[in-house]
Amino acid sequence: MRTPGPCPIVDMRVTPVAMGDLPLLNAAGLHAPYALRTIVELVSAEGVVGVSEVPGSAATEAALESVRATVVDRDLFDAGRLLAAATEHLEATGASARRTHVLSALDVALLDLQGKMLGRPVCDLLGGAVRDRVPFAAYLFFKHRGAGGDLGFGVDAAARGWAAARQEAALDAEGIVAQARAMCREHGFRSLKLKGGILPPETEVDAIRALSAAFGSTVPLRFDPNAAWSYETAVRWGKEMEGLLEYYEDPVRGQEAMARLRADVRLPLATNMCTTAFEHLLESVRLHSEDVILADHHAWGGLRPCVELGRLCRTFGRGLSMHSNSHLGISLAAMAHLAAVVPNLTYDADTHYPWQSEELIAGGRLVFEDGALRVPRGPGLGVEIDRAALARLHENRVRCGLTRRDDEAEMRKVEPGWTFRPTRW
Amino acid sequence: MRTPGPCPIVDMRVTPVAMGDLPLLNAAGLHAPYALRTIVELVSAEGVVGVSEVPGSAATEAALESVRATVVDRDLFDAGRLLAAATEHLEATGASARRTHVLSALDVALLDLQGKMLGRPVCDLLGGAVRDRVPFAAYLFFKHRGAGGDLGFGVDAAARGWAAARQEAALDAEGIVAQARAMCREHGFRSLKLKGGILPPETEVDAIRALSAAFGSTVPLRFDPNAAWSYETAVRWGKEMEGLLEYYEDPVRGQEAMARLRADVRLPLATNMCTTAFEHLLESVRLHSEDVILADHHAWGGLRPCVELGRLCRTFGRGLSMHSNSHLGISLAAMAHLAAVVPNLTYDADTHYPWQSEELIAGGRLVFEDGALRVPRGPGLGVEIDRAALARLHENRVRCGLTRRDDEAEMRKVEPGWTFRPTRW
Repeated sequence: MRTPGPCPIVDMRVTPVAMGDLPLLNAAGLHAPYALRTIVELVSAEGVVGVSEVPGSAATEAALESVRATVVDRDLFDAGRLLAAATEHLEATGASARRTHVLSALDVALLDLQGKMLGRPVCDLLGGAVRDRVPFAAYLFFKHRGAGGDLGFGVDAAARGWAAARQEAALDAEGIVAQARAMCREHGFRSLKLKGGILPPETEVDAIRALSAAFGSTVPLRFDPNAAWSYETAVRWGKEMEGLLEYYEDPVRGQEAMARLRADVRLPLATNMCTTAFEHLLESVRLHSEDVILADHHAWGGLRPCVELGRLCRTFGRGLSMHSNSHLGISLAAMAHLAAVVPNLTYDADTHYPWQSEELIAGGRLVFEDGALRVPRGPGLGVEIDRAALARLHENRVRCGLTRRDDEAEMRKVEPGWTFRPTRW
Repeated sequence: MRTPGPCPIVDMRVTPVAMGDLPLLNAAGLHAPYALRTIVELVSAEGVVGVSEVPGSAATEAALESVRATVVDRDLFDAGRLLAAATEHLEATGASARRTHVLSALDVALLDLQGKMLGRPVCDLLGGAVRDRVPFAAYLFFKHRGAGGDLGFGVDAAARGWAAARQEAALDAEGIVAQARAMCREHGFRSLKLKGGILPPETEVDAIRALSAAFGSTVPLRFDPNAAWSYETAVRWGKEMEGLLEYYEDPVRGQEAMARLRADVRLPLATNMCTTAFEHLLESVRLHSEDVILADHHAWGGLRPCVELGRLCRTFGRGLSMHSNSHLGISLAAMAHLAAVVPNLTYDADTHYPWQSEELIAGGRLVFEDGALRVPRGPGLGVEIDRAALARLHENRVRCGLTRRDDEAEMRKVEPGWTFRPTRW
């Protein structure tokens, strides 16, 4: 039996990075050529390093730097007080808008560091895995042509391999089906999610019908217009998709509208837009605003809060799925540990991972086998940073000059005068 | 950095024990001379032992024995699947009434064993302590005279010390105040809870008034008639106690009646009787049946579920306190670790501990300092079994011949013909 001793955190490193991204369309506009992430490393006195990754922005990085004094010199097992002190500091300094990302970065890096110090995977520290493989969904996007790629219209995308296929444009049903075929062929995904809310509803619903026809009813299909549809549009086109969707994600904005829509359309409703924080759950229960909540450990303040969200969903009859933004392997590993332990996280998780090609973890990119990720069994998250790769991705960030995600500005480069509209269709 | 290796559980020991108890009155009758507990030990290949304690009964012990095959030979970090397999087994064999006690016994023993293997206290594995001291409340009971004690009526109980004072009868306000003074003097408790629902309401409310007069408004006071009061009685006497109570615990039976009473009496309502499982929370939220939920890791299936209950209470605006039955030091240590990590467990916890004098942990009985328990900082729960003491308490159990708690039968020994009535007054 070992005896507990002091384990101070001696350093916190916050590194802004950027990775190449592709011109994916969504209700907010267009993905820029670089997606931003913030990498956090917590270092123990022994030189063991715990890592995490959150959506990148100069504001998040500044907020992380601002809590340095609540982190460094504290015991790495004193996580409860560390997170409480960070929360208090952010609230006192008016930075509470950054709270969930900062807490997530700290929670995950602490769990990784604790796991590495103890020689146990993070899933063990969260209560123990109930599954060893975490299935993900193919995340399909309408998209512009890639920066330098061969557009390859008319060529069977699946046959060309995903690396080439993902450079292609996809602005109609045919393009989306080709994209889905290529992505599933490469990664083995067994469910599909289409991001919508950008092209006219008829084009998007046409793509859903085409996917359903191409893949059949055994491949669950989800559609997410990101609340860019009016109530009338959501009802009209929702009815067209009845029987086709596993869930209809955020067709309209706000818990009230979602609750009303549940009565008008016979499709399970999912959200990562109307019920996105513990503070929203009381109204969610009162209104029954959705059937499925998409957990996101970056947005809900870390892995431990998402385990608790899992219990809330079991208790209040909500299904649980998982949301994604463009991300690297650290986030993917963290998502896998979370999905491994939450018994009711039974939907295939979203991931943007196949859209990127850069990586900063040692050993290179994680691999999906038959659409699933094997939960890493090494200590902590089971991934390590490749320092040369981290330096490269930091260099990307410095060079690209981006300080925050701005899909609207990017969209204007291809469609001058385009503006974001909360309700577009 | 350590590498995860296999850590099989090689043995599970289930030991029925009994400890001397005193004739405490409650709505169900009278405490028997022995309180029953079940001790569980999980043994690792290295001989490290994880322990837990739950309310004892032959049925619980049989249920624990029945899940042996889901426990032994499994990895001690494979807790998620172990608990799922045990749940499934209990449900398949019609023993789901024992589910929460069995799961609690396994969850706590696993956490203790994991902590001992890793050299970390259980609170670290639950997310990290936010407090180092856990304050408890003085738990006052109307009681018959002790088995062999000097009744000592008219003598100042406080002056005589708690060991003697707790042998005294307490059947009126004067007796309760003397009991409270003696218990607080010995243990330093700074809040009081009176168990009611047994004597006529006027006697019990008289005791509350006397406590309030004797201790003043800085000592929070709680009263718990265990749902033995009719709605009318609860309103009438509740109004008498407005302004006197920190909370009014389970005056009436069921969520509907509790919700109605919240409107009729200006006292916070607490429960460990109407909202006692995750399955009850949807109705609790719909009705708003209580203000405070009393967590009990024995009854809610373990420490991890109670951490999740903490989040639920924060999310849905419920206060969180802690329930107790007669228990030994293993349970007390587990309660302390739980209370250490749950930020909103801000009420002083209930404990029957001062009423017992036997113990089976090495080093003897845990000590309250100024009414609080210092959270053990050793590995796991921070307590170890004294094998000779365990054997003694097992011998108690064999000798007393009790197989379950039966306060009604015990009551009939002093009041022949007495029967339990769900609503007595």
